[in-house]
Amino acid sequence: MARLADQPTPLLCVDGPTLDANLAAMAAALPGPRCRPHVKAHKCTALARLQATCGHHGFTAATVSEVVGLAAAGLGGDLLLANEVVHPARLAALAALAPGPRVTVAVDSEATVEAAAAAGLGEVVIDVDVGMPRCGCRPEDAGRLADRARAAGLRVRGVMGYEGHAVGNPDRTARAALVAEAAAALRRAHAEVGGELISGGGTGTYDLNDACTEIQAGSYALMDTAYAALDLPFRPALWVEATVISVSGRGWAVADAGLKALGMDHGNPAVDGGEVWFCSDEHLTFAPASDRRVRVGDRVRIWPAHLDPTVAYHPEMLVVSGAQGEEEVLERWPVDLRGWDGVA
Amino acid sequence: MARLADQPTPLLCVDGPTLDANLAAMAAALPGPRCRPHVKAHKCTALARLQATCGHHGFTAATVSEVVGLAAAGLGGDLLLANEVVHPARLAALAALAPGPRVTVAVDSEATVEAAAAAGLGEVVIDVDVGMPRCGCRPEDAGRLADRARAAGLRVRGVMGYEGHAVGNPDRTARAALVAEAAAALRRAHAEVGGELISGGGTGTYDLNDACTEIQAGSYALMDTAYAALDLPFRPALWVEATVISVSGRGWAVADAGLKALGMDHGNPAVDGGEVWFCSDEHLTFAPASDRRVRVGDRVRIWPAHLDPTVAYHPEMLVVSGAQGEEEVLERWPVDLRGWDGVA
Repeated sequence: MARLADQPTPLLCVDGPTLDANLAAMAAALPGPRCRPHVKAHKCTALARLQATCGHHGFTAATVSEVVGLAAAGLGGDLLLANEVVHPARLAALAALAPGPRVTVAVDSEATVEAAAAAGLGEVVIDVDVGMPRCGCRPEDAGRLADRARAAGLRVRGVMGYEGHAVGNPDRTARAALVAEAAAALRRAHAEVGGELISGGGTGTYDLNDACTEIQAGSYALMDTAYAALDLPFRPALWVEATVISVSGRGWAVADAGLKALGMDHGNPAVDGGEVWFCSDEHLTFAPASDRRVRVGDRVRIWPAHLDPTVAYHPEMLVVSGAQGEEEVLERWPVDLRGWDGVA
Repeated sequence: MARLADQPTPLLCVDGPTLDANLAAMAAALPGPRCRPHVKAHKCTALARLQATCGHHGFTAATVSEVVGLAAAGLGGDLLLANEVVHPARLAALAALAPGPRVTVAVDSEATVEAAAAAGLGEVVIDVDVGMPRCGCRPEDAGRLADRARAAGLRVRGVMGYEGHAVGNPDRTARAALVAEAAAALRRAHAEVGGELISGGGTGTYDLNDACTEIQAGSYALMDTAYAALDLPFRPALWVEATVISVSGRGWAVADAGLKALGMDHGNPAVDGGEVWFCSDEHLTFAPASDRRVRVGDRVRIWPAHLDPTVAYHPEMLVVSGAQGEEEVLERWPVDLRGWDGVA
């Protein structure tokens, strides 16, 4: 079996046992259709397949590319594109999946309803603004929009609303209060819209959002340092493996993973046994802990601050197992849902 | 000819005439071998080929993947890997390019010298710390390291040192002072090392660094909002084309390009005719200017704060020409130097 230490870096790595534990924890908390895993976090059909074996057969996606890739991988039983799409070619790619894969798209305006109907799509959910300034109609407009969709020949499966302003709040009480407001708005909208689906939530609110019939959590499988700061039962499973390529006599060392291997919108990553100073395109400059002697060729684990845009930089992730420095490579998974056109 | 307005978004776009003007300006200022364009900024062999037609036949690279890709594209006349590499498989991939492509690698320690020699590489430059905490030996150690490299059978072509702490300083006088210090350090090192190359500099210091025989500028071709704030003769040529997918009655609109289409380490991008509030994975929330009526389906140009990690997210860039909204697509260029193993 291949050893991780022999693989060139930078390299996206997943600790297999930690991933398994995270998947099991979610399957126990939200079994079967109560969780609709969001694939935008991992963009990997091999991982989605594991989620399906845990009982989660429906998936959430953010791009047409993710939907098309899931369907091509045989995971198209119930796909929700939780995002608005207006380009005819993109909508045509979704319509072309029928019959077989079941695809539902979010709409939040007359324009998106008309685009979905014109493309020949069959099913939609009404996307509702539940407090975060992004997509979603006002709750009081949801019923009218659902009527408009039905009049256009679309089946309305229900509502969705993502409380993205709440999911990362580290104070559980404050988080719960924001979720309660969002849930109330979503319930109001659902009362006007009807349908079997009330979809929303995320990793940070998976056990707080009691309005939703299904939770769109994605980060729980692999996690990141931002979510790890919350009081959640999921543990960081993903890091960027890097190699020390330079050690300065002036107090720093340099590893070979930088801005093109790490999503930076949540700030710097963390590094085991050291303090991160800054990242360059292909470098991470860090100060090793005072009790640590770092040499060129040493391996270091870099823990991203934000999972999703980190994974999107990498062509593959390696699933590994074993003590640090002794890991064996169990599997190589292509990150095959990247890009926007099925071109990674 | 295809119209940009018909292409689905998000999409990396390059204004062809602006690119041409930037390339011509650099070729006039630093003709022929005085500029060694850094391909890490654009990761695109088609663009590198244009730079070669402007007289720049040597290239700078940050990864083995970039070197191997340039060589495969027939652009391997004189390639400098301005980065330290220690993994045997990566170094073997470089050694396997011989004979034909000319490859020179940076070394800054006995470990990197030994790794280069063990892999059978032929030529190196001594990488010198000129003031930024990253790779590079101390100037006073450069001569000793060059002797070590020669003893190991390597030809030492000279020195390199990148004043990355200076290139982005918006105050030209302060920038020049930092460059002068860096140049002095590099000259001291070169006096001990010898060789025909003194390599360094970047877009922000291309006309300030008089120690270097060649400038490793990369961003000048496409630019970004950070470099556009400097007093440079290069203009922003690259943006992310996006489509408005949602317009809220509460004062914002949402475009379909986010954290997976934009390098975020330098902060938020800019958007024409609006103020950026924040980016999510696949969304940019912005407040349109008060005199602007935005509708679903409108196209917007998003100007990245940092070019290099933006380009690295995209599988291709479209070269376009024409007035905004009327652009025609001149060429589709694969971003073919991504990743670290020739796997994009």
